[in-house]
Amino acid sequence: MTKGTLAVLINSTQQNWLPARWKTRFEAVCGGRRVVLLPDAGLDPAEVHYAAVWKPAPGELAAFVNLRAIFNLGAGVDALMADRSLPDVPLVRVAVPDLTNRMTEYVVLHVLMHHRQELYLRQSQREKSWEPKYQWPASAVTVGVMGLGTLGADAAGVLRRLGFRVAGWSRSPRAVEGVECFHGTAQIDAFLNATDILVCLLPLTPDTQGILNRDVFTKLNRKSPLGAPVLINAGRGGLQNEADILSCLDDGTLGAVSLDVFVQEPLPQDSRLWTHPKVVLTPHNAADTDAEAISAYVAEQIARFEAGSALENVVDRARGY
Amino acid sequence: MTKGTLAVLINSTQQNWLPARWKTRFEAVCGGRRVVLLPDAGLDPAEVHYAAVWKPAPGELAAFVNLRAIFNLGAGVDALMADRSLPDVPLVRVAVPDLTNRMTEYVVLHVLMHHRQELYLRQSQREKSWEPKYQWPASAVTVGVMGLGTLGADAAGVLRRLGFRVAGWSRSPRAVEGVECFHGTAQIDAFLNATDILVCLLPLTPDTQGILNRDVFTKLNRKSPLGAPVLINAGRGGLQNEADILSCLDDGTLGAVSLDVFVQEPLPQDSRLWTHPKVVLTPHNAADTDAEAISAYVAEQIARFEAGSALENVVDRARGY
Repeated sequence: MTKGTLAVLINSTQQNWLPARWKTRFEAVCGGRRVVLLPDAGLDPAEVHYAAVWKPAPGELAAFVNLRAIFNLGAGVDALMADRSLPDVPLVRVAVPDLTNRMTEYVVLHVLMHHRQELYLRQSQREKSWEPKYQWPASAVTVGVMGLGTLGADAAGVLRRLGFRVAGWSRSPRAVEGVECFHGTAQIDAFLNATDILVCLLPLTPDTQGILNRDVFTKLNRKSPLGAPVLINAGRGGLQNEADILSCLDDGTLGAVSLDVFVQEPLPQDSRLWTHPKVVLTPHNAADTDAEAISAYVAEQIARFEAGSALENVVDRARGY
Repeated sequence: MTKGTLAVLINSTQQNWLPARWKTRFEAVCGGRRVVLLPDAGLDPAEVHYAAVWKPAPGELAAFVNLRAIFNLGAGVDALMADRSLPDVPLVRVAVPDLTNRMTEYVVLHVLMHHRQELYLRQSQREKSWEPKYQWPASAVTVGVMGLGTLGADAAGVLRRLGFRVAGWSRSPRAVEGVECFHGTAQIDAFLNATDILVCLLPLTPDTQGILNRDVFTKLNRKSPLGAPVLINAGRGGLQNEADILSCLDDGTLGAVSLDVFVQEPLPQDSRLWTHPKVVLTPHNAADTDAEAISAYVAEQIARFEAGSALENVVDRARGY
């Protein structure tokens, strides 16, 4: 296959997403391949063979008739899947160990924060007073992981090593060592009933939109050693019903939540999530992409593809992830 | 060996340390053995063969002339070692997996909190503002663990699994898989120079008294990706110089600290540690003893000892731990 041109299309003004820096990075790892930055009014769209993209607008890729593959520079492809005019070529998710490691850091940190009563301990420090409060061992707590792909399976492994009981739920059957695995709609209630800390790493699809709602929260273990169950969402904001989260925190259906993602990002200033004492927020940084690792991954995939190998981590468009 | 009497001596008013509850627990697991509670004015001291103790006053055990062994109901034996009149019988530390697991939870939680910039993120949430701040991967950070006994080795294993570089330092040579091990006074500077996050799990002995001081903090990695190095002490309060910790936080020699233990416990209300924005405090609960696990461990050790086996985890009195 001829050596194709790589076009970079980044719609972000965040410092670590500066388009020009991505172009420089790709040039450094693409071994002489032509790298162009989009949008470029002087460029013939037919000259572009690969697109490395972050949050392209719907329709922005439609004109590239000779496109061979699209590389999404993050894990979630829900925004791309919503683009009806997306060229029908392989869509590749990044799946680098760096991203998995970072997500596992986030999940383990937030599970431990809630398990070890960090919200209570920080408040106690501010009040200079330690009322004794029983600390249950990890073996008394079940963490339920929704989504058992690369990310969910890795986090589950470390949680097991720390002594937690771990349950997992996924759309289709999965087997993860040491994890009690549930799947499909028929088994979701049994999974939720067993869960004290719910960790959501699901992809956002029409099936999972708004899945983190009162109906689901009510089914979590009502006899949790933590007092009330906890939610941790590091998937996508579209998975969660934020009004339900707030009302479930207020009436005790949930004991606390950690949210890395939001329906609208950045989170609007008037959201009660900012100030609720049982809410721990992070700025969608659970698994911040390491640009060096990602660009090297894309360069290697293109080189292998042109040498005749299949692309890795191609999205199943019917499934949506 | 005849079936001896177990005496329980607890000097604590904390709820989970109520002496009467310990007596009940021991009776439940000691299979008919006589269990008495000290102090007991009507008891003939010669009738006591084993003592299960928590913070006995110096001299309180001297009268028990037929003592066969002393069981300390926690990991640190520094308070007992300071008792010059302690009967010269085997002194046993508790070493139950439950205690190790809890300490590893604490260490991993606090390493991740500092690594993932939790102090900055909580402040940002209060201010409803996320200034972008680079998040380095775990592989860029070296955690240095002082003390490579059961606790240090277990925590190091999970930190390795999370992708951190891990160094270790101990008095005598140790080998822990995946950990760069240093030992003795000759190698402590090399260990400190490599360390971004210093985790202290040392026993308190005359050699280690006040070891966490400005001299040591100054030798930590001055080019740490965290900006400035971090201290986590879950050993004993006597290991740390609190005036040095505060002045090193103020002048930037340290970036942040997590302290579970204090020179004086409970920490005096007027200590600046309570309110310093770079200090994370916990109430000496890093590895809260699980009473059920401990009492079962002591009962089993006594039964094995009377059947002719050696006691486990006997303290080396010359070494002090």
